[in-house]
Amino acid sequence: MSPATAYQHSHDNIQSLIDIAKVHDVAYTTNIHERTAKSITKHSLAAPEEIPLVVFTPESTEKTAILLKECNARRISVTSFSGGTSFGGALTATRGGVCISFEKMKDIIALHEDDMDVVVQPGLGWVELNAQLREKGLFFPVDPAPGASIGGMIAMSCSGTNAYRYGTMKEWVISLVVVLADGSIIKTHHRPRKSAAGYDLTHLMIGSEGTLGLVTEVVLRLTTLPKNLHVGMAIFDSFQQGVDAVIAFQKYGHKLEMLELADGPQIHAINRSKLAQLHLEEKPTLFMKFAGASLQAVNDQIKSVKQICSATKAIRLEVTNTSERIDAIWGARKCIGHALVAMKQEPTDVFLHTDCAVPISNLAALVKGTQKLIKDSNTSTSKKWFCANVGHVGDGNVHSSVIVPIEDKEKAEKTLREVARLALRLEGTVTGEHGVGLKLRDALIEEVGISGVNAMRRIKASLDEHSILNPDKIFTSGEANKMKAKL
Amino acid sequence: MSPATAYQHSHDNIQSLIDIAKVHDVAYTTNIHERTAKSITKHSLAAPEEIPLVVFTPESTEKTAILLKECNARRISVTSFSGGTSFGGALTATRGGVCISFEKMKDIIALHEDDMDVVVQPGLGWVELNAQLREKGLFFPVDPAPGASIGGMIAMSCSGTNAYRYGTMKEWVISLVVVLADGSIIKTHHRPRKSAAGYDLTHLMIGSEGTLGLVTEVVLRLTTLPKNLHVGMAIFDSFQQGVDAVIAFQKYGHKLEMLELADGPQIHAINRSKLAQLHLEEKPTLFMKFAGASLQAVNDQIKSVKQICSATKAIRLEVTNTSERIDAIWGARKCIGHALVAMKQEPTDVFLHTDCAVPISNLAALVKGTQKLIKDSNTSTSKKWFCANVGHVGDGNVHSSVIVPIEDKEKAEKTLREVARLALRLEGTVTGEHGVGLKLRDALIEEVGISGVNAMRRIKASLDEHSILNPDKIFTSGEANKMKAKL
Repeated sequence: MSPATAYQHSHDNIQSLIDIAKVHDVAYTTNIHERTAKSITKHSLAAPEEIPLVVFTPESTEKTAILLKECNARRISVTSFSGGTSFGGALTATRGGVCISFEKMKDIIALHEDDMDVVVQPGLGWVELNAQLREKGLFFPVDPAPGASIGGMIAMSCSGTNAYRYGTMKEWVISLVVVLADGSIIKTHHRPRKSAAGYDLTHLMIGSEGTLGLVTEVVLRLTTLPKNLHVGMAIFDSFQQGVDAVIAFQKYGHKLEMLELADGPQIHAINRSKLAQLHLEEKPTLFMKFAGASLQAVNDQIKSVKQICSATKAIRLEVTNTSERIDAIWGARKCIGHALVAMKQEPTDVFLHTDCAVPISNLAALVKGTQKLIKDSNTSTSKKWFCANVGHVGDGNVHSSVIVPIEDKEKAEKTLREVARLALRLEGTVTGEHGVGLKLRDALIEEVGISGVNAMRRIKASLDEHSILNPDKIFTSGEANKMKAKL
Repeated sequence: MSPATAYQHSHDNIQSLIDIAKVHDVAYTTNIHERTAKSITKHSLAAPEEIPLVVFTPESTEKTAILLKECNARRISVTSFSGGTSFGGALTATRGGVCISFEKMKDIIALHEDDMDVVVQPGLGWVELNAQLREKGLFFPVDPAPGASIGGMIAMSCSGTNAYRYGTMKEWVISLVVVLADGSIIKTHHRPRKSAAGYDLTHLMIGSEGTLGLVTEVVLRLTTLPKNLHVGMAIFDSFQQGVDAVIAFQKYGHKLEMLELADGPQIHAINRSKLAQLHLEEKPTLFMKFAGASLQAVNDQIKSVKQICSATKAIRLEVTNTSERIDAIWGARKCIGHALVAMKQEPTDVFLHTDCAVPISNLAALVKGTQKLIKDSNTSTSKKWFCANVGHVGDGNVHSSVIVPIEDKEKAEKTLREVARLALRLEGTVTGEHGVGLKLRDALIEEVGISGVNAMRRIKASLDEHSILNPDKIFTSGEANKMKAKL
């Protein structure tokens, strides 16, 4: 299953690819800064040599197909780029090769208001898309990092805080135009809401991290903008109580707009950062959003939530629809990322995080187990490790963040691998929304077994015979092991 | 991409497979009636020779794996069977071979109430599952034909009347245990609600019609039982007005529990059958269900629906929550299948139907175009063709049913192929929920292009080297073309 031929990244071979691109009027750059920026972003690190040799910026599906066909024939590896917000090394140009960047493909091609769908190019950001949809009362709910673009969001099968209510990228893509490694162009479906027409190539591409094909056009489902927004905050003595409240909401049949549960250390980080307007009690805190087409329905949800929070012994509950309090409460949730970074005591401190997801009934056990593993690993150093947890609780997805002195980096990484194993024992996944990239390849084997990974390898080989598309990601190939033993 | 080896269905080869099954205590039968019943059901026809030579009924994943490993080594083709309600020929044993039937694997393995998921075996029916869930207040919403079982529902990527509100099988499967053609066992995920761990093998299996692997264990998402049920019925002068009302509901942000739009001839069939309590006006009729955790929310939906039906000039609207009227109204919708069959004037009359889905804004055009195509094709015979349409309107999925005298069968089939082409021109699919099987293989090429079908063929070959799993379905293989030119 290893590629039949090694990559051919000689100067001459790359130059002749550039010459073909010129003939077809495809722009490119060899500028070192631009090339570096395609592998190394503020979210993603790579070694200085792990950057593409050239960056191409095609303007159409057809030109993308010309490039891939030539790369395939010439055995040139290809990474792709849209928003650049992924974690875990999916952007790293491990083999050099070339990058195809979708920065010139950011258009909305067609908006179908009656069908509530939109046809877009991969370089379009979800924030920019929503800005344009807002005036029509429409909404695309998948909300990863603000800079993320649709192409990368598909590649990484991302989600975010809205996933509990609306689902992940897997639920919001109707169809794709994809260029395969050999330059052939496929359209996975047309625009109907549902289809049973053959293999589900749409979902096969979602989460394939640029290893199976490059998406050049997308039909996305849309929904209506949330109405009657209310925001709430409930404080509990234990993380388990917060989880119990969420389980009770779900069993009652309520689908709140958003549910985020942060532990005490996470709230401490918010307070210490002074980034939020509020000073919060440093205990497990459930942030909630309520919305719906009918105010009555929202009020009814709030009433049930009050009863349930009382039954689960919340220390305090506040629900509000005034814009000042909404901004204050949700502002506290939103600043978590920056508040965590601000917990670094030295600039050299290392910030690590997990992305595990477990069945919700096991979530509190995962958080408790994580805290214990971190505490137990922290005995040998003089400096205390900081560990905080925030969960997209409705999905059972929790990000445990750890800040450690640089000399403890390796030890902390080893501990987080144990956290991932704990998540697997709790019937979970090592990655709820960030993807595998380079970092979780071994963990993936532990999750789906070598038979599962080998099935993925066989599919990869069937669609990308020479393994030109984002090599070394998700799993190693035979050749990858040989050439890049350090990974 | 054609299988390297032809199938080896000699008596000796099959007998030695049976001998191995005996060693492993796997039950089997060679009874002609039982074998026939695996290819030919009341939903599915096949030629008398297109039945399996043996039916095995394993009781576990491991025993299924033993059978597949042996079949693969011996080049014996394998069809699979659970509920037997699929259309279009997915059950047909085109090569004979053997059948693996999941009739002894119908258990609920584990119910996780707090996580709202359930682990089941493939032979379990969705009706039986819901009967067991009801007392817990839980609900599995995917509702194809009543006899359907989970394994077949996954194979065919089915849906039903609940799909508009809840989504299709694609949205309700969390993970799968699958036995691949070579006998290897994969678990696509554990039990978390979401995962970004490698290729989405779960969705690749959903809709693969038994051609990529056999599902032996399933984790299904559950939801709460609908509360506060109300049923409604709105009558319109035109199909387009009914569609317009539905579009308006969606734009308002309402997600009704169910929406089904039947045209005038469809209502005529109901009346003529006398299967319903009601005698209905023979005009386009929108059947609606309303439900929600809060009665206020349901009442608010009903209020909006009344306003919208008034604005779209519905002739009449009724909404009720009395059980007698609910039974009367929904009883009319539910008898549609039998009412259509009762429209046959001669026992030899042929009943044909479509399964197209289009973006909702094109749905009325599809129905109008279908009626015109049928009318235009009907000129040469003395007997009038009957054509009626009922749509899962929220999904844009419409079943056009045609009843013709047997001598017009071929002509009518040709006309329905034109209907499918019209659906494609209207940016739709030829199959919204029934799958490709044998009948829609050519149409699939028209839908996703030869590049799309070839990508599917490559994936098939990568996971099933000798093409033992349900050969000839979804697409032809090279060898299939040669051996079975008649298909």
